[in-house]
Amino acid sequence: MTGPALPSDDLGELQAWHAACRDAPLAVDMTRGLPSAEQIALSHAMLSLPGPAPFDSEDGQDWLNYGGQQGIPQLRALLAPLLLGVPAAQAAVGGNSSLALMHAAIGLAWRTGLPGHAPWAAARQIRFLCPVPGYDRHFAICRDHGITMVPVPIGVDGPDMDQVERQVAQDPLIRGMWCVPRHSNPCGATYSEEVLRRLATMKTAAADFTLFCDNAYAVHDFAPQASAPPGLYDACATAGNPDRALLFGSTSKMTIPGAGIALLGGSARLLDWWLAAQRACTIGPDKVNQVRHLRFFGDAAGVSRHMQQHGHMLQQRFAQVLKVFARRLSALQDVHWSRPSGGYFITLWVPPGCARRVVRLAAEAGVAILPAGTTHCSGTDARDRCLRIAPSRLSPSDAAQAAAIIAGCVLLACAELSSAPGRDASNTLKGVP
Amino acid sequence: MTGPALPSDDLGELQAWHAACRDAPLAVDMTRGLPSAEQIALSHAMLSLPGPAPFDSEDGQDWLNYGGQQGIPQLRALLAPLLLGVPAAQAAVGGNSSLALMHAAIGLAWRTGLPGHAPWAAARQIRFLCPVPGYDRHFAICRDHGITMVPVPIGVDGPDMDQVERQVAQDPLIRGMWCVPRHSNPCGATYSEEVLRRLATMKTAAADFTLFCDNAYAVHDFAPQASAPPGLYDACATAGNPDRALLFGSTSKMTIPGAGIALLGGSARLLDWWLAAQRACTIGPDKVNQVRHLRFFGDAAGVSRHMQQHGHMLQQRFAQVLKVFARRLSALQDVHWSRPSGGYFITLWVPPGCARRVVRLAAEAGVAILPAGTTHCSGTDARDRCLRIAPSRLSPSDAAQAAAIIAGCVLLACAELSSAPGRDASNTLKGVP
Repeated sequence: MTGPALPSDDLGELQAWHAACRDAPLAVDMTRGLPSAEQIALSHAMLSLPGPAPFDSEDGQDWLNYGGQQGIPQLRALLAPLLLGVPAAQAAVGGNSSLALMHAAIGLAWRTGLPGHAPWAAARQIRFLCPVPGYDRHFAICRDHGITMVPVPIGVDGPDMDQVERQVAQDPLIRGMWCVPRHSNPCGATYSEEVLRRLATMKTAAADFTLFCDNAYAVHDFAPQASAPPGLYDACATAGNPDRALLFGSTSKMTIPGAGIALLGGSARLLDWWLAAQRACTIGPDKVNQVRHLRFFGDAAGVSRHMQQHGHMLQQRFAQVLKVFARRLSALQDVHWSRPSGGYFITLWVPPGCARRVVRLAAEAGVAILPAGTTHCSGTDARDRCLRIAPSRLSPSDAAQAAAIIAGCVLLACAELSSAPGRDASNTLKGVP
Repeated sequence: MTGPALPSDDLGELQAWHAACRDAPLAVDMTRGLPSAEQIALSHAMLSLPGPAPFDSEDGQDWLNYGGQQGIPQLRALLAPLLLGVPAAQAAVGGNSSLALMHAAIGLAWRTGLPGHAPWAAARQIRFLCPVPGYDRHFAICRDHGITMVPVPIGVDGPDMDQVERQVAQDPLIRGMWCVPRHSNPCGATYSEEVLRRLATMKTAAADFTLFCDNAYAVHDFAPQASAPPGLYDACATAGNPDRALLFGSTSKMTIPGAGIALLGGSARLLDWWLAAQRACTIGPDKVNQVRHLRFFGDAAGVSRHMQQHGHMLQQRFAQVLKVFARRLSALQDVHWSRPSGGYFITLWVPPGCARRVVRLAAEAGVAILPAGTTHCSGTDARDRCLRIAPSRLSPSDAAQAAAIIAGCVLLACAELSSAPGRDASNTLKGVP
């Protein structure tokens, strides 16, 4: 990939630079948080696993025949504490997709109600709190069930808990809330202990209020530090609200995406509710894939070693993007970005009214970014500020080049805004190097 | 396994025989249609597949990353015509379970309606025709959605089409019907061309009436004859009702149960409806398992060779049971049984009022049979006649021994009935050898 060198802050020069980019566009897709081929190669050994060696499941299930609705105990013992923060007995293995488990759990609450509660189908409206910016696929699950989404802002420590507490205490129609407690998609927030405690203890007007906790990035730190185990379930149990959280995770970003293992966990009561419902849906999940994962990881130390390699590769890519942003965008008013310690995304905030323009300019230069507004549960970012940048799949040098294009498009959008007649001049470029 | 030799038709002798069986019970589970370990060993090579060789999906999808909602084209091209009777473009791959696809398709009709029609949730009642005896897991899906089940009898050529046509023409609440067109579970019926034609052409009071067609045994013949391709979709398309059938199948009883590939198919319109809905549920099915299956089978001839080996193993077991039944039960009034040419079940009809008694007697002798009534959508077999016998998992000699126990229990139940004061004497034993 090549691209013209980025000029100064002069509108005319930026326009000329962009025209040159358009004439020789890159072909870079940064819309989704996909692992790179290099990351996936870390798991190529799985393609010949589990191999022919016999395997004894601790529950006596024949791993090569039907059955085993909850999943193989040894795999649950390995992954449930790491990914969900619950013991093996309080987790169930699903198919390959934690999203599918979230969709199914909400569908089940809709059809039958949470244990001891009325079906959501019987309510005149169901509302979910959605930290924004958030994950578009969570919003799609809500839309699919006709759930009204209520945005709450999220900062570096997690959602704005004053707002969350006030709303759930007042509004009995709020029955759920999305949470990504570690390396949130897309802002990178990791919820503080205090946020977890407040989520677990807060008074809720709805007796069946449930935290839908997507632990997609539980072991996805960049640096080889020991991840804190996911703490939301423990906080809920300590607060006397063990049924408040349903927890989801998968190995999609640990082994081969799409060929992984998804898990659901929660209190014993919620797990019984889930497993009882599964009997009408399936004879059981793929146990061969469970043994494949077990043999590949070995033990918790094996998971840790494996995830350190992932983290190192991701960090290389993120570092390139952050370096470009720091060099090109630091001097801009109203422009800032997240500096995540894990996960798959950088959030870039641009001056009000610029985000859609940046997406369009970048697309013209051959860099696809998720459409602005997609990170907002309404589908629209009212201030048009928020961009989700996903560098994971690119090589480090491609990530740097794509970041340079994005930065140039931000500069151009800002310059256009400053020069527009009658527009607020507060977004002027100041001393861009 | 050992068991006392079966005595004559004398009640006292039969009771003594059964007491001896109770003292040294077998430990045989014939409740479910599980493949035997010998069958599963035919697919052990899959445990080291797909292997590290590169794979190019015809749709350009990276098989080792996310995506590919419809499934790999080459796998669809291999399996969709064989298992569903539709071209590759009209099939979508799911997870490991065709039951899960059936449950999800009915859930989707409930939530959004079939294409161009109102959601079933908005109807005051939804009814399904259920050929009886039928598959208990189909009935469980209906119960899970509050669908009222209407039984229709099924014979060797398929459901009683006079009844089916009359009911669907009159009753607009009947929106669906379960079908297992080949080697029906449990009666072994294979629908005739005439039945398929009548299902495809019949007038229905409900505009969105849909045949939920479970092609679980599409390529599961015992003898190495060429299976007729599944013909229901073609019949519907020919009749101008291409949207009438949703078709389901899986490789569960072809490769490793629980670690297989499930497929859904139908008209292009139904497929679009299905795929559009999947976007909110999952990023895509397990493509590695699709390539694993593709490399294992190779081509349609590979599927055929593989299924002939399955068929041979199943036939050995079924032949043992049928031989015992013929020898022990032929002379009994009101006792008859199916003689399937494929699939996983034999249905045994015993004199009215005897089925539950036989299940209990067999259980005491260590042979577990599916509880009587489970094959009926109401959960109760009003005449208490129908038993589902599943010999597949046993060795041929164990199958023979279990069949001898069942036959003895039928003889005993009949003798008890004959000797009971005030009971109809028409069920008397006649000249049992």
